[in-house]
Amino acid sequence: MSNIDSLAEAFMKFPGIGTRQAKRFVYFLLAQDPYFVDTLSREIAELKKTIVQCSGCFRFYPRAGTSTLCNVCIDDADSATLMVVEKDTDFESVRRSGGYAGHYFILGGTIPVLERDPASKIRIHELLTRVENGAKDGLSEIILAMSVNPESDFTRDYITKAITPLAEQLGIAITTLGRGLSTGTELEYSDGDTLRHALKNRK
Amino acid sequence: MSNIDSLAEAFMKFPGIGTRQAKRFVYFLLAQDPYFVDTLSREIAELKKTIVQCSGCFRFYPRAGTSTLCNVCIDDADSATLMVVEKDTDFESVRRSGGYAGHYFILGGTIPVLERDPASKIRIHELLTRVENGAKDGLSEIILAMSVNPESDFTRDYITKAITPLAEQLGIAITTLGRGLSTGTELEYSDGDTLRHALKNRK
Amino acid sequence: MSNIDSLAEAFMKFPGIGTRQAKRFVYFLLAQDPYFVDTLSREIAELKKTIVQCSGCFRFYPRAGTSTLCNVCIDDADSATLMVVEKDTDFESVRRSGGYAGHYFILGGTIPVLERDPASKIRIHELLTRVENGAKDGLSEIILAMSVNPESDFTRDYITKAITPLAEQLGIAITTLGRGLSTGTELEYSDGDTLRHALKNRK
Amino acid sequence: MSNIDSLAEAFMKFPGIGTRQAKRFVYFLLAQDPYFVDTLSREIAELKKTIVQCSGCFRFYPRAGTSTLCNVCIDDADSATLMVVEKDTDFESVRRSGGYAGHYFILGGTIPVLERDPASKIRIHELLTRVENGAKDGLSEIILAMSVNPESDFTRDYITKAITPLAEQLGIAITTLGRGLSTGTELEYSDGDTLRHALKNRK
Repeated sequence: MSNIDSLAEAFMKFPGIGTRQAKRFVYFLLAQDPYFVDTLSREIAELKKTIVQCSGCFRFYPRAGTSTLCNVCIDDADSATLMVVEKDTDFESVRRSGGYAGHYFILGGTIPVLERDPASKIRIHELLTRVENGAKDGLSEIILAMSVNPESDFTRDYITKAITPLAEQLGIAITTLGRGLSTGTELEYSDGDTLRHALKNRK
Repeated sequence: MSNIDSLAEAFMKFPGIGTRQAKRFVYFLLAQDPYFVDTLSREIAELKKTIVQCSGCFRFYPRAGTSTLCNVCIDDADSATLMVVEKDTDFESVRRSGGYAGHYFILGGTIPVLERDPASKIRIHELLTRVENGAKDGLSEIILAMSVNPESDFTRDYITKAITPLAEQLGIAITTLGRGLSTGTELEYSDGDTLRHALKNRK
Repeated sequence: MSNIDSLAEAFMKFPGIGTRQAKRFVYFLLAQDPYFVDTLSREIAELKKTIVQCSGCFRFYPRAGTSTLCNVCIDDADSATLMVVEKDTDFESVRRSGGYAGHYFILGGTIPVLERDPASKIRIHELLTRVENGAKDGLSEIILAMSVNPESDFTRDYITKAITPLAEQLGIAITTLGRGLSTGTELEYSDGDTLRHALKNRK
Repeated sequence: MSNIDSLAEAFMKFPGIGTRQAKRFVYFLLAQDPYFVDTLSREIAELKKTIVQCSGCFRFYPRAGTSTLCNVCIDDADSATLMVVEKDTDFESVRRSGGYAGHYFILGGTIPVLERDPASKIRIHELLTRVENGAKDGLSEIILAMSVNPESDFTRDYITKAITPLAEQLGIAITTLGRGLSTGTELEYSDGDTLRHALKNRK
């Protein structure tokens, strides 16, 4: 197998990339100047050396100094709230929105509805530890901030069940993001669930 | 112009129908048995005779007896709430959701953002009258139930301004549908507005 | 069932129209002035009276005078060629292209691949008769002008087999439309079949 | 700028990749095992060393031995025909179709319709040299195998004009791929150009 084919196969593992686009990536690289290609290669090689996972929230961040905590975990963010999100890009979305000033925790995935070993799919033990430690710093609310689809719903239910005993014991509330009309929602095409939530949450 | 062309032109005025599909409608009718075509023609002709507009909520409903009110307006619905929607299909969506038991009011449209004569685009005078009459029956809340897009937002703001003095005088609250995550929303692709609302409306 | 619902059900039978759009059609009609609605109703009622099927090519055309033949069949079109198309809208496409000056024949459909009674799905007997009559007027070529998909391919094969004996006996050629690159075709995304035809038909 | 951001920026230069997907690529890599990431980095670094451009047809191919010609150019392909394609992926499409056994030439691009310096956009000088050399090996036909869109059409016209004098002098024919119905074409939705070609190329 030529380097063209083996590299195309690697690109086919990238999220959302099929056979044709993987090939186009390879020919695109062949047409670039050596500087671009070498820089790309080096950045990929160094990615895991310069980017580490935060021991507090488990998101990926650029290592700086000797701390094992990312800047958001170190900063004097509001330690009363902990927002649990599925993945790094969800963290970025919330961060960009500018509407939240507390701490975060990255689950690292969701649990497929028929999964036999749910605990293996997300950082549930790490979350329990994080909640226990958070209690010492005044944690009073855990926000489960997850997408609205069957797998995310199932994951949220699983987490709720898993952390409720500890949360109750520590006097920590568990909340979920509000449901309702999102930007662009047309009433005419809305499902009953969304409408009922929007009605209940009217103000 | 043949009947094929003139009928196709009429179908082109239907919402969402272009030249090709309009022609396909005509050939579809030519291929149907006479019973289907005659029934269709008759139902269209009788539509405005059998379907009338309710004098209470302004929605279209099948005339029955001598009342000028539709069944929803006559029924002992909860007269404490009045939901204002843009059009009949929005009414149907909310009705189908089963989450609301009060009265309705159909605005009959939205106001384009740069419209010079906004009052001509929606039933604002009729709404004011309806609110005044509602007050006698214990109306305590007006729910502005509109889609989330610039034109609907503009319309909602216009209505709010127009009915606030009367509502305040009569002690009637004005509410809007709750914002947040709707069914299918992915956090990763959510806009800041939706996320901030979802966060504020967490529970 | 109200007239709104029964009319919506009729519109749902139209090609490509679902539940929601059917309802929107009804509300669209309710919002139109009586003149539009009455004209539409009348045109639908009169459609089958003013539009008849040509006894020569079987396409629908506006009746004029006492002839049972449409203008294309009557006109001194080139009677040496007969183009067989699936349906009226295909006839219109070819007509619009301006590239053909001969006679037409509308099959009235295609044959599903597993159909047990193929002859019931298209006007095969009428086509045989038309070919026989055409021979007297100098017909020398039958063009099977059909779309390129499994069902159309199957239909073309069926017709070819059915008319070959007669055509051979009368010395009439049977041809099919040329295959190759159509407008907008990208070589990169072309299937092998199209490329092989395009190569064979190069000039 | 962190390595996450700079790598995402590099991925955004890839064909068809936007901001969001570029970020997802980075997080995808962070979640892979080191072996995958290292292999990918190394393959990208070595791409330009192991893959070279053929001095005959200008396509990219895995270097093997000391020849500067790719296997297709070396193989005893039919040297009577030379197919000119826009890019490597077009070559792959034709190759996969199995319908062509001659030589190839990769143009390396197309000419934008308003381009002032057309010769700088494609390998026109190299093509002229290739044709001259081909004549010694019995080249008798140049097939311009290009997509069907304004830019490709313009490029084909430009090439035709540029090589016609030489081709005529050498007695070499210039042909283009056949036009007609491609797989999936529906007559009803076909443009006039395609229909006229399909009709002319009927057989």
